[in-house]
Amino acid sequence: MAKPKAPMDHRYLDGVALKKKIISDVKAYADGFTSLPRLVSILIGDVPEAAVYVRNQARGAEQAGLPFEQVNWAGDITQEECKARILEMNDDPSVLGVILQRPVPAHINVRTLQSAIHPLKDVEGMNPASIGNIVYSDVALAPCTAAASVALIKETGLDLEGLEVVMIGHSEIVGKPAAMMLMAEGCTVTVCHHMTRSVPMHSRRADVVVVAVGKAHLVGPDMIKPGAAVIDIGINQIEVDGVTKIVGDVDTDAVLDVAGWITPVPGGVGPVTVAILMRNAKVAHERQIAAGWL
Amino acid sequence: MAKPKAPMDHRYLDGVALKKKIISDVKAYADGFTSLPRLVSILIGDVPEAAVYVRNQARGAEQAGLPFEQVNWAGDITQEECKARILEMNDDPSVLGVILQRPVPAHINVRTLQSAIHPLKDVEGMNPASIGNIVYSDVALAPCTAAASVALIKETGLDLEGLEVVMIGHSEIVGKPAAMMLMAEGCTVTVCHHMTRSVPMHSRRADVVVVAVGKAHLVGPDMIKPGAAVIDIGINQIEVDGVTKIVGDVDTDAVLDVAGWITPVPGGVGPVTVAILMRNAKVAHERQIAAGWL
Repeated sequence: MAKPKAPMDHRYLDGVALKKKIISDVKAYADGFTSLPRLVSILIGDVPEAAVYVRNQARGAEQAGLPFEQVNWAGDITQEECKARILEMNDDPSVLGVILQRPVPAHINVRTLQSAIHPLKDVEGMNPASIGNIVYSDVALAPCTAAASVALIKETGLDLEGLEVVMIGHSEIVGKPAAMMLMAEGCTVTVCHHMTRSVPMHSRRADVVVVAVGKAHLVGPDMIKPGAAVIDIGINQIEVDGVTKIVGDVDTDAVLDVAGWITPVPGGVGPVTVAILMRNAKVAHERQIAAGWL
Repeated sequence: MAKPKAPMDHRYLDGVALKKKIISDVKAYADGFTSLPRLVSILIGDVPEAAVYVRNQARGAEQAGLPFEQVNWAGDITQEECKARILEMNDDPSVLGVILQRPVPAHINVRTLQSAIHPLKDVEGMNPASIGNIVYSDVALAPCTAAASVALIKETGLDLEGLEVVMIGHSEIVGKPAAMMLMAEGCTVTVCHHMTRSVPMHSRRADVVVVAVGKAHLVGPDMIKPGAAVIDIGINQIEVDGVTKIVGDVDTDAVLDVAGWITPVPGGVGPVTVAILMRNAKVAHERQIAAGWL
């Protein structure tokens, strides 16, 4: 309590800095080619909430030197037509990777479409085969947010072997794949969720707490062991004094007093997620070359 | 300590009884068809240690009313030839499912072959796409041993929602998929392994401990919370007074004093694993019909 609050910035895990580092690696790779196939981002129907993601991805691709095309499909397109177009992209050597923006209209089965994207073009790492590869400790093409949280944990400099990690949230896109990736790194991982009897019992013993639930201020300082690292994957809109604010799942200001490291929201997991998408694109390119596709 | 040891059999989770129940369900399904495609079990090279597995599977298939064919490929067969033959089986409507016995010769890449088995014929649930489906909570075609441990936990009658499960061992075939399956059932799961700082710290707080390491007597009574269920997946050969004995990873006699339920070895997970293979074959058959293959 008596600790001075002023020079506390070193506790923040800076997602923007890590993004720059990852993107510049991809850029160095991309600069070695005179031409590259393009990333195709697919938006189905009118999805204003996806606009900010698409913009960030387009900017990330530009910074990484990767061609990026945004395509919009009509909201009343059939599942069959979506699938046919994706299969065409699988066969098209000018397409490096396919990004399927969510949400999709209610009549579209997003998982079937994700399964239709060839694993070598699955830059989002959402195909069940890509997820299965993670279980086999082949983590090269992992879901971007899960991979971003692992990359940020590595930024602490902590030795991941034997590290006690508690994941709060067991979603298919973040919690479960991130748990598998952390196991592959040697962490001891516990996955908590809404059915867990006592989340604090677990989180208070953890060296690293990863939170991906989507509930503002879910995690307070009483849930964190002093000195632990806290990775906040939540993105929530709240009103503070009539002003809309973006916050994570962690009560960041309060947890900062006990945590050894914490990711800010915004500026933490978000930017790194975009960078990982570009890193996945690089991996996809390498694998397509290795497979004789390019 | 003063408890009488005599009528303790009710603490055993009887794998043979559960096997019979599952197999009879499959048999009832199989009896509804005048003819069925066959399971093909592939042995590559001379693998005497696989003989007992193959025999148990053949007997399980017979009990379940499923045709079973054992094929032996020469030990010097090439990877390409193996793959070509598996792809042929994928296209052959008279083949219901493909079982790839392990170990395989050193020059054969088993994962590539598992990936070549079509997910609808992957009765062992080893294709990365099948494993990925588990992460997406689609557990219908899961690795047999992992699914067997879940089925045995259900036999305790415990409510799986919120149950604290500690998995010891993070293998790709058992530990990780079983963890995912248990999460899908609502359990809070911790996965421990050889890098975990203190396995007893975790196992002593667990309602259910699942052990899949392959080390005789690894788990003693000091690691188990009184009343907990213990699922022993290990199969180890040891010498006792000059006699070879099969034991699990748990010191069963000693743990019986504290555990609420325990699987014996042999007679626990083993028989259920064979039964799950037959249940997977039934699911594969249903899915092949649904896909218009049959």
